[in-house]
Amino acid sequence: MLGTPAALRVGTVRKLNFSGGPGALPDCVLEAASEAILEVPGQGLSLLGISHRSPWFRDVVEEAEANLRALLDLSRSYYVLFLQGGGTLQFSMIPMSLLRGRAQPADYLHTGYWSGKAIPEARREGAVNVVWSGEEEGFRRLPRESELAVSAAPEYLHYISNETVEGLQFHRVVGREDLTRICDMSSDFLSRRIDAGRFSLIYAHAQKNLGPAGVTVVLVREDLLERIPANLPAMLDFRNHVRMGSIYNTPPVFAIYVTMLITRWLRDEVGGLQAMERLNRAKAQRLYETIDSSQGFYAGRAAVPDRSLMNVAFTLPTAELNVRFVEQADAEGFAGLAGHRTLGGVRASLYNGVTLEAVEALCGFMDFFRERYRREAL
Amino acid sequence: MLGTPAALRVGTVRKLNFSGGPGALPDCVLEAASEAILEVPGQGLSLLGISHRSPWFRDVVEEAEANLRALLDLSRSYYVLFLQGGGTLQFSMIPMSLLRGRAQPADYLHTGYWSGKAIPEARREGAVNVVWSGEEEGFRRLPRESELAVSAAPEYLHYISNETVEGLQFHRVVGREDLTRICDMSSDFLSRRIDAGRFSLIYAHAQKNLGPAGVTVVLVREDLLERIPANLPAMLDFRNHVRMGSIYNTPPVFAIYVTMLITRWLRDEVGGLQAMERLNRAKAQRLYETIDSSQGFYAGRAAVPDRSLMNVAFTLPTAELNVRFVEQADAEGFAGLAGHRTLGGVRASLYNGVTLEAVEALCGFMDFFRERYRREAL
Repeated sequence: MLGTPAALRVGTVRKLNFSGGPGALPDCVLEAASEAILEVPGQGLSLLGISHRSPWFRDVVEEAEANLRALLDLSRSYYVLFLQGGGTLQFSMIPMSLLRGRAQPADYLHTGYWSGKAIPEARREGAVNVVWSGEEEGFRRLPRESELAVSAAPEYLHYISNETVEGLQFHRVVGREDLTRICDMSSDFLSRRIDAGRFSLIYAHAQKNLGPAGVTVVLVREDLLERIPANLPAMLDFRNHVRMGSIYNTPPVFAIYVTMLITRWLRDEVGGLQAMERLNRAKAQRLYETIDSSQGFYAGRAAVPDRSLMNVAFTLPTAELNVRFVEQADAEGFAGLAGHRTLGGVRASLYNGVTLEAVEALCGFMDFFRERYRREAL
Repeated sequence: MLGTPAALRVGTVRKLNFSGGPGALPDCVLEAASEAILEVPGQGLSLLGISHRSPWFRDVVEEAEANLRALLDLSRSYYVLFLQGGGTLQFSMIPMSLLRGRAQPADYLHTGYWSGKAIPEARREGAVNVVWSGEEEGFRRLPRESELAVSAAPEYLHYISNETVEGLQFHRVVGREDLTRICDMSSDFLSRRIDAGRFSLIYAHAQKNLGPAGVTVVLVREDLLERIPANLPAMLDFRNHVRMGSIYNTPPVFAIYVTMLITRWLRDEVGGLQAMERLNRAKAQRLYETIDSSQGFYAGRAAVPDRSLMNVAFTLPTAELNVRFVEQADAEGFAGLAGHRTLGGVRASLYNGVTLEAVEALCGFMDFFRERYRREAL
């Protein structure tokens, strides 16, 4: 143990969780989920043993959808779906639906680890035009609009709003307004305001800001459904899920329930996405300030204009200090700080469930650690 | 309220759950899952915020697999996978893997509602030979071996061991030993002993006997992987899940954890599948006796030799009495007794998590209800 001053720590039975995902969820939601496993209030049944066709569960799905619509001010021309398979299955379902058998290519941005996973899945289904790649530059920045080599008439444009691994986030909507714009918002959905009406399809797995692993939210504009080819496997055809209100087969009841609780918390406790965004900005600002004022002891990974408010990736002066930092932080109650297994370094993820107090405590630990070890780094 | 004698009820905060699925899970598992949402013992983190790449979660997956191997005496030539998408996604993944581009048809049994869902998904991928259908007879019995019109050399034979909706269960392994035998055991997996080595692939979604909705177990013999065609979507290629030990992308951590707890309970508390089967036989026998001794007030749906030990489907003398039975049972604390929405009537599901005491209580209620209403039925 480092003997961090107790004042730097936040009292909780749990560690402070800065995991890249599955990430921290608010305490009040964890408590409600825990209780519902014993008995769903008023139902006399465990959440794990209640029918997905019960009126109670239909109400859960309806409330989750209604809360999302309210939070995003989402038009009725979008369907809201709760699916399985994570972002990875969407990497396939989207080109199966919108690229298979089509004449034009799909345009993809290659901005980091996760967009790099989406591209080969699209290539199975048709032509893909990579309109920009940051690979040669080591994914340390995002492109300007003028750098994108967009196709004349692509079937759609796909990008990822926040690259979780590298800590890069677009602070604008990408691409021309006439394009079918598709965005993977898995790691920043509901963390800030968005103009949902500028997207044809938005998807986000839950395990960052939205709920537990096991459910993925898809917002799809109704006109896209007309482009879906015949004879897709039933589970991979968005139209089946639309027709059955996300209960085509047995859905992940538990994960959808927790997602509903999160949307309720965002709406009623946090006070909407503007308030959430304000808090998330304050959290990220506090942490980046700690990095920037460290006289180079902590070095941010991303170019400053493209820094993510969700995932703060940084390194210490030596590989050994990176490891020591993560280990000692964990021993002091700061969990999940190891960088992604492909990249190393340190990553602090500041999802909605992470409090400002937790970030303050982490910054205190970082200052303390720097004081302790900066001589070694000289 | 009917005023059922209190002695007929079992003391619990929850209702007694006879739902067709998601079904009842044992109290001790619900309590452990509830606790882990607040904090995974010894980890200082919520189950919902713990990394799927943590050593802790790898241990969970390994224990779930080891327990399944022990319970089933499963040979090392099988892989054990934990996937998303339910039985329905397996309806597609199996023919995509083993029928697409192949010369011979796949043989399918059509024994009820769920096998009827599997067949059109296979037809998208290749030729299907329905070797027997109970549709014209209203799915009230299962075929004898001699009735199956099996192909000369099918790519595989697919059947469902227990038809959840109709309450029909095979009490034998179906088909010739030289065939690639594939079985959907979603509603009776781990409820009885099986000779796993006689199957090439077994799959079962969790929400009957195995855990909560959101995870599906697949046991696949290694030689089948060689038949999988190139260029399947990554999430639908069994080989990716094998290669990554079921952590190809973020898996449904919560559902897998609960499934591990169930396998631990079966192994350590119940004492294995022989003991579980003995208990399940006693439960079903008790309920079928109540039906058979009711002088026709309760009429079982399935032919006696094909009666399911898991799902007991029956009807009362009138449609009105069916409805009244389900409503009054629910008011008395017996939940989930309505028959499947496509069939009506009554269905009591006796999954592993349902106790003999719960079945005794239900039988008591049934006797009481019959006494009360048999005059009306005359």
